[in-house]
Amino acid sequence: MTDATCITLASRPHGAPMAENFKLETRSLPEPGEGEFLVRIIWLSLDPYMRGRMDDVKSYADPVAIGGIMEGGAVGEVMVSNNAKFGVGDIVTAQFGWTSHAISDGTNVRKIDPSVAPIATALGVLGMPGITAWVGLNEIAEAQGGETIVVSAATGAVGSMVGQLAKAKGMRVIGVAGGADKCAFATAELGYDHCLDHRAMDAKALSAEIKQAAPGGVDVYFENVGGKTLEAVMSCMNTGGRIAVCGAISWYSGKGIDTAQPLPAVWRNILTRRLRVQGFIIFDHFHLMGQFQREVGPLVGNGAIKVKESVAEGLENAPEAFMQLLQGGNFGKQLVRVGPDPT
Amino acid sequence: MTDATCITLASRPHGAPMAENFKLETRSLPEPGEGEFLVRIIWLSLDPYMRGRMDDVKSYADPVAIGGIMEGGAVGEVMVSNNAKFGVGDIVTAQFGWTSHAISDGTNVRKIDPSVAPIATALGVLGMPGITAWVGLNEIAEAQGGETIVVSAATGAVGSMVGQLAKAKGMRVIGVAGGADKCAFATAELGYDHCLDHRAMDAKALSAEIKQAAPGGVDVYFENVGGKTLEAVMSCMNTGGRIAVCGAISWYSGKGIDTAQPLPAVWRNILTRRLRVQGFIIFDHFHLMGQFQREVGPLVGNGAIKVKESVAEGLENAPEAFMQLLQGGNFGKQLVRVGPDPT
Repeated sequence: MTDATCITLASRPHGAPMAENFKLETRSLPEPGEGEFLVRIIWLSLDPYMRGRMDDVKSYADPVAIGGIMEGGAVGEVMVSNNAKFGVGDIVTAQFGWTSHAISDGTNVRKIDPSVAPIATALGVLGMPGITAWVGLNEIAEAQGGETIVVSAATGAVGSMVGQLAKAKGMRVIGVAGGADKCAFATAELGYDHCLDHRAMDAKALSAEIKQAAPGGVDVYFENVGGKTLEAVMSCMNTGGRIAVCGAISWYSGKGIDTAQPLPAVWRNILTRRLRVQGFIIFDHFHLMGQFQREVGPLVGNGAIKVKESVAEGLENAPEAFMQLLQGGNFGKQLVRVGPDPT
Repeated sequence: MTDATCITLASRPHGAPMAENFKLETRSLPEPGEGEFLVRIIWLSLDPYMRGRMDDVKSYADPVAIGGIMEGGAVGEVMVSNNAKFGVGDIVTAQFGWTSHAISDGTNVRKIDPSVAPIATALGVLGMPGITAWVGLNEIAEAQGGETIVVSAATGAVGSMVGQLAKAKGMRVIGVAGGADKCAFATAELGYDHCLDHRAMDAKALSAEIKQAAPGGVDVYFENVGGKTLEAVMSCMNTGGRIAVCGAISWYSGKGIDTAQPLPAVWRNILTRRLRVQGFIIFDHFHLMGQFQREVGPLVGNGAIKVKESVAEGLENAPEAFMQLLQGGNFGKQLVRVGPDPT
């Protein structure tokens, strides 16, 4: 028997999540059965999509039940195994949840090679955020070298990867981020040509700044945020532009919805500019994981792709880090260190 | 010298166009020069896009200038010709404008074969509305047999063609139109499986009716109107659905914009349902006119495609008919008879 520390959904949030919506619990796990194994979690990933799972609303995935363990991707080490494909000491990643230990039968579990890159990158640049950036840029937006792209949440886990991959394709890359420090990081470290601080201006000013940074207009918008950034970029799109809709974090807790522009102001641009606006959910594209790993893995391993992480120490601090994440308080990929590195 | 009766833009409308925005004038045309010919207009087409040209706003085409002849497609007969490619008596179609006579050098003029179908169909089912329907359905929405489609402005010039082409592909076809008479026509004559009267209900009720008519959800939405119909259909779309954005007539004169839903309510569906929303302007697709004529011409000629027209008599009545059109007062393709049939 193993005692697992975990964080469960105590109640559903109204608007922004609060500490009372989460509960730290200890639960006893059974011994692994036939074909099963026990994983000790080392890293937990925090991502904006988790906010959607806290609501009792039909979306692209089922909500977390009240009393259920919060959903999340994690990296861990196999401690006990009755599964021939996963041996003790293997480093693995899967949606293990906000927990210190988990039992798995291997379904949807992926082994990580620690010699390629640090194992935490399996939750970031080489994991879900990385493949999200890669699929959105290439498959959804069909971005081409020589074009101009705007990336919102430009230094976030997804955005920072979009910006770097776009730059590597030979695009003109304009970021939008919240705060002067993030913007400085985007241009100095991630290679963005420009990065605009949305906290310093309203939608109209932001639109004017984008037009200045993109004198030839915007061909591709990688959309993570909604809100005034979306409104500003819409008026800068070129005819035939593509918008990959990956997220809408500014609206996730219900804020900003009543003050958003009415639909027609944005919608008319889809018609007059002949835009293609396409939503995507990365779970539909996981069959491309192998190709993604082969293409991007070496770029992370040799340092061509920069990695920026925010680390919260200890599972008990995951709720606070998650609440900060939803307000843009993180800087780079948000991780929680749940346990020590493998020996 | 020929005196042409024409209708010019006297002033730009604020909101819905009014009679005072138009001016009936007589202008003298010069004799046709080298390579030119004189056309006597028989039929003028009235279409919602013309409302956009009355505003001094950059859109996909230049606005009509104050004092300029209103833009419009027309069919006419060549009366005098100095152009070897167009002979006296030829029936031709082009953007001749709201006028009784025009001089042309043949640029963007297309000859019509009167033996295929009545010449007025060159402005409807075999003209711009027809190819708009055909391109939107096949190229933009990539509609497939067996799928379910919703068509707004279901009995309009474009919508009635979308519905009939969709039915011919083996789709489940649900129309939305304004008024019980239009809905009855849609199901009895155009072959729609269902047609819902948006004037009889609010967005929520409309959404419920669509769900009842489309128990398997909606795969394709052919969008002509914006407003509450768009809001209602969004909540019925299936994962992976496509929306061909062809128009937004309910918003064209500025009405309904302040009372429209804020953007996020519609936008979030693009993400969670992985929709592809694509605007298109038919002028980008005119290179497909030959293929369209070959495929659809015979269906019009043999009566498989039904033709429904509203005819205003006399160019002087074009403004009133156009104002009615923008309010949904027409029923089928809106034409103006400008001159007698060819002898």
